[in-house]
Amino acid sequence: MTRAQDVSLPGNRPHGYATEGGAAWRVSALKEVSYDVMVQPQLLDPANPALARAVKSGAAPVRQLIVIDTTVASLYGEQLTAYLAGHDVEFHLCVIDAHESVKVMDTVFEVVDAMDAVGVPRRHAPVLAMGGGVLTDIVGLAASLYRRATPYIRIPTTLIGMIDAGIGSKTGVNFREHKNRLGAYHPSSLTLIDPGFLTTLDARHLRNGLAEILKIALIKDAELFDLLAAHGAGLVEQRMQLGEDAVGGAALTVLRRAVQGMLEELQPNLWEDHLQRLVDFGHSFSPTIEMTALPELLHGEAVCVDMALSSILAHHRGLLTAAEFDRVFDVMRDLHLPVLHPVCTPELMRGALADTVKHRDGRQHLPLPRGIGDAVFVDDVTQQEVEAALFTLGERERATQQPRLRRPVDMGV
Amino acid sequence: MTRAQDVSLPGNRPHGYATEGGAAWRVSALKEVSYDVMVQPQLLDPANPALARAVKSGAAPVRQLIVIDTTVASLYGEQLTAYLAGHDVEFHLCVIDAHESVKVMDTVFEVVDAMDAVGVPRRHAPVLAMGGGVLTDIVGLAASLYRRATPYIRIPTTLIGMIDAGIGSKTGVNFREHKNRLGAYHPSSLTLIDPGFLTTLDARHLRNGLAEILKIALIKDAELFDLLAAHGAGLVEQRMQLGEDAVGGAALTVLRRAVQGMLEELQPNLWEDHLQRLVDFGHSFSPTIEMTALPELLHGEAVCVDMALSSILAHHRGLLTAAEFDRVFDVMRDLHLPVLHPVCTPELMRGALADTVKHRDGRQHLPLPRGIGDAVFVDDVTQQEVEAALFTLGERERATQQPRLRRPVDMGV
Ligand SMILES: NC(=O)c1ccc[n+]([C@@H]2O[C@H](COP(=O)([O-])OP(=O)(O)OC[C@H]3O[C@@H](n4cnc5c(N)ncnc54)[C@H](O)[C@@H]3O)[C@@H](O)[C@H]2O)c1
Ligand SMILES: NC(=O)c1ccc[n+]([C@@H]2O[C@H](COP(=O)([O-])OP(=O)(O)OC[C@H]3O[C@@H](n4cnc5c(N)ncnc54)[C@H](O)[C@@H]3O)[C@@H](O)[C@H]2O)c1
Repeated sequence: MTRAQDVSLPGNRPHGYATEGGAAWRVSALKEVSYDVMVQPQLLDPANPALARAVKSGAAPVRQLIVIDTTVASLYGEQLTAYLAGHDVEFHLCVIDAHESVKVMDTVFEVVDAMDAVGVPRRHAPVLAMGGGVLTDIVGLAASLYRRATPYIRIPTTLIGMIDAGIGSKTGVNFREHKNRLGAYHPSSLTLIDPGFLTTLDARHLRNGLAEILKIALIKDAELFDLLAAHGAGLVEQRMQLGEDAVGGAALTVLRRAVQGMLEELQPNLWEDHLQRLVDFGHSFSPTIEMTALPELLHGEAVCVDMALSSILAHHRGLLTAAEFDRVFDVMRDLHLPVLHPVCTPELMRGALADTVKHRDGRQHLPLPRGIGDAVFVDDVTQQEVEAALFTLGERERATQQPRLRRPVDMGV
Repeated sequence: MTRAQDVSLPGNRPHGYATEGGAAWRVSALKEVSYDVMVQPQLLDPANPALARAVKSGAAPVRQLIVIDTTVASLYGEQLTAYLAGHDVEFHLCVIDAHESVKVMDTVFEVVDAMDAVGVPRRHAPVLAMGGGVLTDIVGLAASLYRRATPYIRIPTTLIGMIDAGIGSKTGVNFREHKNRLGAYHPSSLTLIDPGFLTTLDARHLRNGLAEILKIALIKDAELFDLLAAHGAGLVEQRMQLGEDAVGGAALTVLRRAVQGMLEELQPNLWEDHLQRLVDFGHSFSPTIEMTALPELLHGEAVCVDMALSSILAHHRGLLTAAEFDRVFDVMRDLHLPVLHPVCTPELMRGALADTVKHRDGRQHLPLPRGIGDAVFVDDVTQQEVEAALFTLGERERATQQPRLRRPVDMGV
């Protein structure tokens, strides 16, 4: 038999208020969280035991539940099935047509139903989530809610998943018109990153991921920025595949630095106790922009519009020189990322900032780049400044419209 | 400007697998959680500043959102409104007709809508939840999901709320036919317990709370058990009101010991990392019993049926003597608590235990009383034993049917 360990509960009186004939307790506890992120090429190669080991870590003899994005299933389903069969893993596939418009609670419930159907136990049989950020955010929330927390493993198959959505602790879905309004902090126990999945990702989604990498570069990693400036277009063309050539070498460095930079920012603030977050750069106006433009702008594209606007705000405040500012916009242009969208009216921006202020508990905490690779937080951006920035951005867009027309924008594969 | 603190991320390789051309990270973090529970009589007395202080702790000048149970609003709404007006607290009431059948996600969404309407910021404006366990479980989950966690305060108005549902870290709702299948660990920052609310609680719900107190007594507090044995009926009659007489004195001691006992069990295991939980006594078969009998059995009543069954299991295993066993059943009878229900067929019990085993990750971890005030965990209860216990319970019920008919069962106020 085991007895729960006895603890002394100090009978302190919170708020210093003496209770009459009462009693008071303070409950204190520490939660330890730890998870792994691995770059693991050739994940579905039968000779690579990594995935089989990860899913077999469970003691309970239950079927492995795999929640997978429709597109990913059609591209890699056969290979996955062969891999698992070869490693004697019994499994059940739950295929979800994941895209931003179905990133809602009803889809979370679909995953919960699959968990119930398979009979997922409380621990040691982590659900496997395989897909882009939409899919892993949904499965992460389902796993978090199921029995108040069950483990899961992520295999991000988009670039945004590999360097952002699939490696942090945040899960979430949209609610009514609000981006990620409902969610939980619940990192997967393990994330397996195989850049090989990017070979089938279309150029637009690759750029979408590079936008989040550009974010990390701008706020904290000048070297990463230099790599993007030198190889941005090539990285898209070669789908971030690792290799011996300059671009192939850059791909691994870019991936590593992006993950490293992101995790450095996340680890000390895993539950966002501090609402001054550098990684919120590009995420102040963009939640509203993304939801309003839905489905026109991808997440990273909306982030890029926000970064462009914020860079102009920084420039107007003397934080970015004209030359630095031009370098930033050059990279955005090389990556064919949008820097403005028609939904960005002064009124929408006002509402977007107001909602972000609520999200940051009454303060703007707006990260602005200071030079390239560094950033500051400001709290006093005025609507006038935002409108001036919008105006400058519009002017710039009009001025560059002509030359851009000459280079056809490749939005397809 | 503030920079997020740099951390060294060890490049260790999880699972000892060498990645080729890869990289690996382990992210580790500690979350500190601390919350207060206070017995605070005369909470709505204008002269008592406790509640006003609690809701005014917020810096942001927003309306206070109060989510309140319909019945509680009709009984205490006026007093609450007067109190808040007197303390210059602007507020918005969200009234929810909370009962077990609406303890579902849709009701959580109602609360989320109210949070959106009021514009609850991320921190420092805790939502106030006032009602029984159903209401606080719903609001707790809404607060947990909203922006991935916002704070809330609980004012439990039922006995079960005061000594169990309102003081722990668990929140949750039912999903499909599964009890508390979806939820989160998210304690309120503060729980204010005013036993005065129990004056209007009907006898049946008071007994329902005493069932959970009996649980604590049986597994770890023989003195608490003696108090229940001596004053059980009186505590119900006097609605647990504190006073100078023997029963009034016992009321405060019972309340204090119940809260103390519960918190002692919860604090070292706030996220249920250990699935051997003494407080799971009475909660092995009861989730299925409660959901199947819904709305016939209250939570504590279903728990009592489970405790009766488990006590017989313990008796059959020689863990409880016949005399101890009789004392337990005497208290249950004095409290007019059910010890059996027609839904308890052998088949239902089999399914109930199987689901609990999933919830406890493949093990039974069944707490059984060892004498009164102590318990052990067992993992090898057979279906045969369960059926034998059911049979004995049925025999006992039939034998005591006659005398029970002579004392009218007061189920009303
Ligand atoms: N949780 C977080 O911390 C976090 C961080 C950043 C972004 N996000 C979220 O991530 C989402 C965006 O993620 P996303 O960009 O990955 O979108 P996504 O999940 O919608 O995937 C993009 C598209 O690529 C397809 N796809 C996925 N893998 C593929 C592959 N290997 N080959 C071909 N096609 C493939 C998908 O079917 C989909 O159509 C947003 O909802 C955003 O809010 C979350
Ligand atoms: N979160 C946890 O750790 C935890 C622990 C134990 C139980 N629970 C949950 O708590 C729920 C049971 O809670 P409950 O028994 O409080 O039920 P409840 O919330 O349904 O309240 C019982 C009834 O009493 C009424 N009521 C509430 N306060 C009153 C008052 N002061 N005067 C008169 N009437 C009043 C309510 O309107 C309701 O009809 C179950 O759903 C159970 O799962 C949760």
